[in-house]
Amino acid sequence: MDGMDIATLMEGLGARAREASAELAFAPPQAKEAALLAAAEAVEASLPQILEANARDMAFGRDKGLSDAMLDRLKLDASRVAGIVAGLRAVAAQEDPVGAVVAEWDMPSGLHIRRVRTPLGVIGVIYESRPNVTADAAALCLKSGNAVILRGGSESYHSSQALLACMVAGLKAAGLPEGAIQMVPTRDRAAVSEMLRMVKYIDVIVPRGGKGLVGLVQAEARVPVFAHLEGICHIYADGEADLDKARRVVLNAKTRRTGICGSAECLLIDRAFYARHGGVLIEDLLKAGVEVRTEGELLSIPGTIEAKADDFGREFLDMIIAARLVDGVDGAIAHIRRYGSQHTESILTENQATADRFFQRLDSAILMHNASTQFADGGEFGMGAEIGIATGKMHARGPVGAEQLTSFKYLVTGEGTIRG
Amino acid sequence: MDGMDIATLMEGLGARAREASAELAFAPPQAKEAALLAAAEAVEASLPQILEANARDMAFGRDKGLSDAMLDRLKLDASRVAGIVAGLRAVAAQEDPVGAVVAEWDMPSGLHIRRVRTPLGVIGVIYESRPNVTADAAALCLKSGNAVILRGGSESYHSSQALLACMVAGLKAAGLPEGAIQMVPTRDRAAVSEMLRMVKYIDVIVPRGGKGLVGLVQAEARVPVFAHLEGICHIYADGEADLDKARRVVLNAKTRRTGICGSAECLLIDRAFYARHGGVLIEDLLKAGVEVRTEGELLSIPGTIEAKADDFGREFLDMIIAARLVDGVDGAIAHIRRYGSQHTESILTENQATADRFFQRLDSAILMHNASTQFADGGEFGMGAEIGIATGKMHARGPVGAEQLTSFKYLVTGEGTIRG
Repeated sequence: MDGMDIATLMEGLGARAREASAELAFAPPQAKEAALLAAAEAVEASLPQILEANARDMAFGRDKGLSDAMLDRLKLDASRVAGIVAGLRAVAAQEDPVGAVVAEWDMPSGLHIRRVRTPLGVIGVIYESRPNVTADAAALCLKSGNAVILRGGSESYHSSQALLACMVAGLKAAGLPEGAIQMVPTRDRAAVSEMLRMVKYIDVIVPRGGKGLVGLVQAEARVPVFAHLEGICHIYADGEADLDKARRVVLNAKTRRTGICGSAECLLIDRAFYARHGGVLIEDLLKAGVEVRTEGELLSIPGTIEAKADDFGREFLDMIIAARLVDGVDGAIAHIRRYGSQHTESILTENQATADRFFQRLDSAILMHNASTQFADGGEFGMGAEIGIATGKMHARGPVGAEQLTSFKYLVTGEGTIRG
Repeated sequence: MDGMDIATLMEGLGARAREASAELAFAPPQAKEAALLAAAEAVEASLPQILEANARDMAFGRDKGLSDAMLDRLKLDASRVAGIVAGLRAVAAQEDPVGAVVAEWDMPSGLHIRRVRTPLGVIGVIYESRPNVTADAAALCLKSGNAVILRGGSESYHSSQALLACMVAGLKAAGLPEGAIQMVPTRDRAAVSEMLRMVKYIDVIVPRGGKGLVGLVQAEARVPVFAHLEGICHIYADGEADLDKARRVVLNAKTRRTGICGSAECLLIDRAFYARHGGVLIEDLLKAGVEVRTEGELLSIPGTIEAKADDFGREFLDMIIAARLVDGVDGAIAHIRRYGSQHTESILTENQATADRFFQRLDSAILMHNASTQFADGGEFGMGAEIGIATGKMHARGPVGAEQLTSFKYLVTGEGTIRG
């Protein structure tokens, strides 16, 4: 397709989404719940087709030379599909955020004011290889009364289409407009650029991906964005850290799962900690099979390798960590301000004032004290499913569930009340 | 100044604001309060200089041929300056939103999670003729821990500079960074375009103005925007409206003050109302001196004049109103969806189901039932000062006070807690 075709195609998708969103905005909670349950059933019933579609994607991915990590993210099997089904049912069971009265009060003028939740409108989700995002994101958008335009990675094209068909079947079964969940039907990258500029049809873009997508969004987005970008998470061992807690948490923060955005990518060690305990944190990581890239004194620890300049501020998503000595909590704060991505950082200390300083002077979506960065997850926050961890500060921040996909309006009632 | 100079100038302002915002983010509430009180004192003490600066602006405005309405907005006198002083003191007395714990809870993992308010960072405010916005906007940004870059209209340049000096004096007195409140020191329009693209230095733009500014923002903004744009407010008299309430509210909605964004610009009359009560609402408006622009049957009411096509969806800000017959609440909803600006609309009816339908199917920031649109005002909502009425849906909506100028972060504490 040439550029002209893409623009026309996207305009069609946009107009259809906008129309659906007007209807979805006041769809009864029962209809949305029914659609999600029917979609879950459709996914269950379509297991063979979904796995077949995924096999085509996997073959395509292997031919394309995708890394094992990428292929693993792309892969679906019966258990992962069961996870998708469970996810849909969990979102169906959640409370419907739309119409909820967030606050209400009376004014001396006689007016009664209610602030109630409303959908945002149309949400564009741009993601990469994981096909399950198709179902997860669509479910959260539907629950929150928003229409969604999905744009998955070209690697997961067939898997995502198979899941989309199930979601649309759910909409049909519940009598909701099919335009509520659409997917960009082309692998052409120009469609992403188009989405980023469709201010008339898309109210917010949720981009989930790595550096390439970040760059594109920063250069081109005209639509507001809930950035779910890199998770360059730091963990700082203060001079007054408890050694056992520090060892336990650092190891967990890096190694529990390396492919998630809450995985620690950089270990900052207070010189005071190092003077007292030596390289024990790094030795633990090395023993666990982590590659430790560092500099200066820490290079004297056998097994470490020298960090390149760009290893600080880098999201490895792998059994690799950058490590550096810093001067106390202020050194850690300065390093994180320079290299962090405002996702999640953790401090290990028994000194409450030091922890307070870390909490106050850093401005990441999530700050932790004596806890693993791996907890950066909607489920671990008690929010249920999430569409991502927002690293921006506008509207949504941290784990983004159905509630954060809503706006609000004021409903004001009087008795022929006029302003004096 | 040429384009290059403007870019360099704005980069300097931006960097200074960003630096100040890092410090402001954890400034003690007492310091911010002290700065606002000192600024109020400075405004009081500088009354002669402020009036002198304003006289220069007024002379400039008259030479430029500004309308009387524009000149009135530009004008400062002792009483209006006293209003600015009172406004600063009121914001000083407000609760500090930063650091407030919005929610907190425990998780089975042992984590304790707090959601606390944080400043957004750097706010750009672009406004037109009213010089008081300089003090009001700066005060709200400071209270919410944000640095601000102000860009007032060229007409109010000297008045705004005089008020800025007082605000900066307040910062100095309280030991806060002077970069926290800055004003673009040029009348060059290119500075506005620059602001709209300064994603590195400005976190959100608050544009307050008419069609010209709207167009510029829509075409150029790369920075997120809290649009405070047109208030094309509708008032709908349903067939089941109470006649007395309807007469009282319609007259107030249009005529109490015509220059504010909550003033009604379009009256929609249900055919059933018209069949029962005739043109009484329009006759009331005509008697009060309002020019009524209408069409069809309503033109038979003596004194009405024929509406042009663009009189619907137009913000008159004057003693002018557009009027049209519609078929019931659904006709009103369809008209408002097409012509409204999602600011404020009001329905007059005694039928609760009809009012509910209006509330549910429209998506304006403020919807009213049997109340005047003139109540669309932060003070009337009990929020104190406001930086404007946001007509967008992202982050802020309706009256934007200090609280809506904040974001939040999660503070999570454990006891060496790791994820299983």
